[in-house]
Amino acid sequence: MTKPLILVTNDDGIVAPGIRVLVEIASEMGEVVVVAPDSPQSGQGHAITIHDPLRLKKVNIFPGVEAWECSGTPVDCVKIAKHVVLKDRQIALCVSGINHGTNASINILYSGTLSAAMEASVENIKSIGFSLDDFSFDADFKPCRPWVQRIMQYALEQPFEGGKLLNVNIPKLQADQILGMRICRQADARWVENFIEGHDPSGQPYYWLTGEFINEDHGEDTDIWALRNGYISIVPSMHDLTDYKSIRGLKGLSLLSAEQHL
Amino acid sequence: MTKPLILVTNDDGIVAPGIRVLVEIASEMGEVVVVAPDSPQSGQGHAITIHDPLRLKKVNIFPGVEAWECSGTPVDCVKIAKHVVLKDRQIALCVSGINHGTNASINILYSGTLSAAMEASVENIKSIGFSLDDFSFDADFKPCRPWVQRIMQYALEQPFEGGKLLNVNIPKLQADQILGMRICRQADARWVENFIEGHDPSGQPYYWLTGEFINEDHGEDTDIWALRNGYISIVPSMHDLTDYKSIRGLKGLSLLSAEQHL
Repeated sequence: MTKPLILVTNDDGIVAPGIRVLVEIASEMGEVVVVAPDSPQSGQGHAITIHDPLRLKKVNIFPGVEAWECSGTPVDCVKIAKHVVLKDRQIALCVSGINHGTNASINILYSGTLSAAMEASVENIKSIGFSLDDFSFDADFKPCRPWVQRIMQYALEQPFEGGKLLNVNIPKLQADQILGMRICRQADARWVENFIEGHDPSGQPYYWLTGEFINEDHGEDTDIWALRNGYISIVPSMHDLTDYKSIRGLKGLSLLSAEQHL
Repeated sequence: MTKPLILVTNDDGIVAPGIRVLVEIASEMGEVVVVAPDSPQSGQGHAITIHDPLRLKKVNIFPGVEAWECSGTPVDCVKIAKHVVLKDRQIALCVSGINHGTNASINILYSGTLSAAMEASVENIKSIGFSLDDFSFDADFKPCRPWVQRIMQYALEQPFEGGKLLNVNIPKLQADQILGMRICRQADARWVENFIEGHDPSGQPYYWLTGEFINEDHGEDTDIWALRNGYISIVPSMHDLTDYKSIRGLKGLSLLSAEQHL
């Protein structure tokens, strides 16, 4: 039996410790190919590179595993992996991460980790974005391992039943403190921005984005609730952004056009 | 009565002809403030700038209209507009575009134009992304004008009834050939990538992203159908990416965790 082909990527860059965990776990389950950014790409969202060429370089970072670093965004990495590196071979699973820092709630929009996974789902590939709620470079990924292993195994064995992308966030806890996994919805939270204002060495003003994450969604079925209560959150997510509930309410707008010649 | 405050942005950059159309129309309806990228930002998706400072410069481009160019992405522009330029004043409407090129279907993910509008919707601001199905710099925006005017007026007067972001795409047709507006869902289409491979002057290989847009969604309720049949497409869109239909099917995964101690 041929082993399933697993594509591994991330947004923290190919040398970030988090991706190594995914490579090691994936290697026990299938043939692994890594295509990841050659530099940190946090906050790149679903950006793609269209005005510049991309560079792709084979690297020997993970023993026995084919790995490539790419100059582009996380989404670029998935595109170039599928079409250049893997020449349209069938990919059984794409895993992205483990991100250093949570990507729960609205962060799915800003996250390169999740956008890479979403790009794979657009390409009809099962995909999972993993994030640990710890921003530090030397975050302890050991408690994540059995859970990541379990979720990846499930994804390889089971159909996702409609959802093709899982947004998995893991709380910063010891292994025996993690209470389990919860299937959640995305919390309706957001960032309240703040800009640090300063002046550069030549006296010109600059603004540096920072902010505070605000969750006013008190539902107990959200990813934020799960994380704050000791659970791993799993949100099945999708790339159809249509707000179906609003279609009917807007019919008045479409009728306007029939009423009068413009 | 105070005039409604309208924020105008885009992703083609502040000097692109498409934004001028929005500024002119918005100026007839309210107080207009423009904050737009100082360079083209197509394909930036929901990227934000976290590792570099942003620059913000007042410019005199639109007669009688306050305008700022920003060094960041379209999403950065909305964030800095709200919190630095407008100091959290109430924004009645954010309009983004008119993009030179369509942003129907899956392009909502890649588009800086739509991501800027979506960022405004995350901030609880009504917002509309406008795109014309014509990539050329000297695209003729005249046929768009009465429709854009109509849709913006509607947005200012009516609640969106649940949806806060409209993705509006306009076909490349003469004014009298446009048949009207249709409220649609996002077509389930995607790009099939192709990479142009070459070598740079020093002999190093590069890969340049290009692709073909493939629509295998034959529904007549999609944005692509509307555009191809002479209609303006309006897709109410949202930033909750939860795939609610898949939550139940994944319960087996969450049960796994209770069954055995990891």
